[in-house]
Amino acid sequence: MKLVIIGAVAAGMSAASKLKRLDPCINITVYEKGKDVSYGACGMPYYVSGEIEDDQTLVARTPEQFRKKGIDLHLKHEVTHVDPQNKEITVRGLENDTKFSATYDKLLIGTGASAIRLPIEGSDLEGILTLGTLEDARAMHGIVRDERIQKIAIIGAGYIGVEISESLRKLGKDVRIIEQMPQVLPKFSEMVGEVVGQNLRENGVSLHLEERLEKYTGKDRVETLHTDKGVYEVDLVIEAIGVKPATAFLAKSGIDMLDNGAIKVNEKMETNIEDIYAAGDCAAYPHKLTGEMAYIPLGTHANKAGRVIAERISGLDSVFHGVIGSSVLKAFELEVARTGVTTEEAKQFDSDTVTITAPDRSGYYPGATPIDIEVTYDKNTCRLLGVEMVGEAGVAHRINVAATAISSGLTAHEFSQLDLAYAPPFSPVWDPLQTACNQIKCKDK
Amino acid sequence: MKLVIIGAVAAGMSAASKLKRLDPCINITVYEKGKDVSYGACGMPYYVSGEIEDDQTLVARTPEQFRKKGIDLHLKHEVTHVDPQNKEITVRGLENDTKFSATYDKLLIGTGASAIRLPIEGSDLEGILTLGTLEDARAMHGIVRDERIQKIAIIGAGYIGVEISESLRKLGKDVRIIEQMPQVLPKFSEMVGEVVGQNLRENGVSLHLEERLEKYTGKDRVETLHTDKGVYEVDLVIEAIGVKPATAFLAKSGIDMLDNGAIKVNEKMETNIEDIYAAGDCAAYPHKLTGEMAYIPLGTHANKAGRVIAERISGLDSVFHGVIGSSVLKAFELEVARTGVTTEEAKQFDSDTVTITAPDRSGYYPGATPIDIEVTYDKNTCRLLGVEMVGEAGVAHRINVAATAISSGLTAHEFSQLDLAYAPPFSPVWDPLQTACNQIKCKDK
Repeated sequence: MKLVIIGAVAAGMSAASKLKRLDPCINITVYEKGKDVSYGACGMPYYVSGEIEDDQTLVARTPEQFRKKGIDLHLKHEVTHVDPQNKEITVRGLENDTKFSATYDKLLIGTGASAIRLPIEGSDLEGILTLGTLEDARAMHGIVRDERIQKIAIIGAGYIGVEISESLRKLGKDVRIIEQMPQVLPKFSEMVGEVVGQNLRENGVSLHLEERLEKYTGKDRVETLHTDKGVYEVDLVIEAIGVKPATAFLAKSGIDMLDNGAIKVNEKMETNIEDIYAAGDCAAYPHKLTGEMAYIPLGTHANKAGRVIAERISGLDSVFHGVIGSSVLKAFELEVARTGVTTEEAKQFDSDTVTITAPDRSGYYPGATPIDIEVTYDKNTCRLLGVEMVGEAGVAHRINVAATAISSGLTAHEFSQLDLAYAPPFSPVWDPLQTACNQIKCKDK
Repeated sequence: MKLVIIGAVAAGMSAASKLKRLDPCINITVYEKGKDVSYGACGMPYYVSGEIEDDQTLVARTPEQFRKKGIDLHLKHEVTHVDPQNKEITVRGLENDTKFSATYDKLLIGTGASAIRLPIEGSDLEGILTLGTLEDARAMHGIVRDERIQKIAIIGAGYIGVEISESLRKLGKDVRIIEQMPQVLPKFSEMVGEVVGQNLRENGVSLHLEERLEKYTGKDRVETLHTDKGVYEVDLVIEAIGVKPATAFLAKSGIDMLDNGAIKVNEKMETNIEDIYAAGDCAAYPHKLTGEMAYIPLGTHANKAGRVIAERISGLDSVFHGVIGSSVLKAFELEVARTGVTTEEAKQFDSDTVTITAPDRSGYYPGATPIDIEVTYDKNTCRLLGVEMVGEAGVAHRINVAATAISSGLTAHEFSQLDLAYAPPFSPVWDPLQTACNQIKCKDK
């Protein structure tokens, strides 16, 4: 049995490692376009800031370590075509410009995603970066340490935009964020957007909401950024407006994709074509709550999906039950987290929300800080549908209590009555999430 | 409708408050033996240490606040007898030594528990304290600030013993703990016991395990403590060997109790006698996993049970689904937590355990510290039965992710595949709990 894996970051290499442990005799070949493997992309903002000193710290395992396990790993090799009929791929060696084909019994597509670039005037000027790969992170790490680079504009106030704004403020840079939506973190609720926006401003980030980038100007390097509302001098621009699945090479393969190019997989991580799996940031997974395919590119899914594929190929009946939209980020001193449906997705349900503010630990215990919580629930069944939280402490893990409850289909009342652990340094006697659920008038009781 | 409540701390007063909100016209009378109401007993060790400066900070609401809401609150009044036949109680006014009877339509017993004293030689000497009530905390707060009090022995290494050892070390005292069991925190696993024991020693606590207290000697005050292994000079002793339900006055009432005097209640918080409810540290609740009655006196249960009783009396069909043994404590720099069955209770199941150590956040993120985790599961169904954890960070809320999963009946594999939120400052890409579950070879997949 010959498994070919395209892409050697999270999904591909977690599948390869796990499968080699389950079945040491299996033949695994991996083709990776870049030169880095198996790195923690989510750690890149902390490498840029200098909190993580060495880029190699982000690498979970080196190419040599994988090769020692018997995995046939080819860096700087791009797969340009997949022919499912003949179970054959076309590979281009990027260093020597070679071209060859290879066959597979099973194929795993784990090519990830690439940062979206804005197709506007001046976008080919130097000094416009994205943060998609470890290569990007190294380039950014270098340039932001140049003393001449002071005025930095970030385009987009999503996860990466917000995280990198913190990295750059830590380096003492003059940071401006341009976001076309009316709030930061547009995938979060207005409530969270307001709290985080306020906090960014308090940390010296110049925040421009509902402002649309129109063009860049400059001689060779970008010097000026033009929006529908103003003109700003810049030494560097970081575009952080999102990612698109790296699946263009599959255009004629017959593999089912969403409009954005994300490969559709079922709970078994199978595409519509036999013996072809997909996982990681190039794939869309079933959403447990909406029942639709969701493109939520996150490292956790990549690892889980990769493991499931390895287990299935080895003969186990594993499944990845799908995503519910859980995520968390650190934004300066705030922990910001969500799980379940977004405000937009909630419209599919007959839903309502409650919003409360409660202390993260017993109000009388030193250091207690407030957490803002928004809980979305189904008005008919009282089932919990979504939770968003923001606060200085006690948010990042608490969101996973909500994620577990939502995944398990608990109602607000069932949640309120859960036996959760309590001690004054960690929680009020009613956990803030339970206090929020206590506000919900349930028909289930 | 006249509701009589016996006891004015957590269970009683949360029921009274909630019911007054639900039904402002209801007639509520409360009799409380002591002079304090509605205080957070779990915060007392932090008042003793001085981290919480004022004992009034622990008081959620004052007697005046309750009275303003129309609750007829009688402090220093002890109920000495309950006559369910005639729905009548006998009350003794402790200040003027009055005695009277009162009738009820519904009765809530929330008398709590009292600290167990050891019936040994010398136990009537001065200088032997317990920490059961706010009154006790005030006494302890005063005496440990006396410069002559330096050598303090704590009897018992349970929650209170461990917490108070930290309070006293913070005050610079010479602290010795005598525990007759072979580990600290005997309700936790050996693994946790070892980690916490080691940490106590590192924090300067002299720890004596498998050592049994035999007698106290001294002139008027305790001066010497004698065990089966040694003789120790002491300036003060704190007995922290557990609590017993304060239900002696119900001996002839016909109310069903466990051998230790804990009142048995069902999911509706009803005793075996109509119109008599019980809640808080005087009650035993159904254990969701073992199906047996469990005496786990904790403030969370008191509040939940109190609220359920209020809702039921107001006509709602609320239930408290029962306990699963969740608890957490801070022990110096450690967070120590458990949920689900104990090692002893696990013997009822065909169970096994896995133990791992994993970083609390991404290994590459600054400040990552290890968490030791033990997961107990049913070998046949792979259902999660219990989790214990100890570490410097990321334990206290993470245990509630496990508590929610265990309450919801999740298997190890289902847990591993949960969509939990991840970012490097807060978790590795596989949450440590999921990494532990990944070790479990499940028949469910």
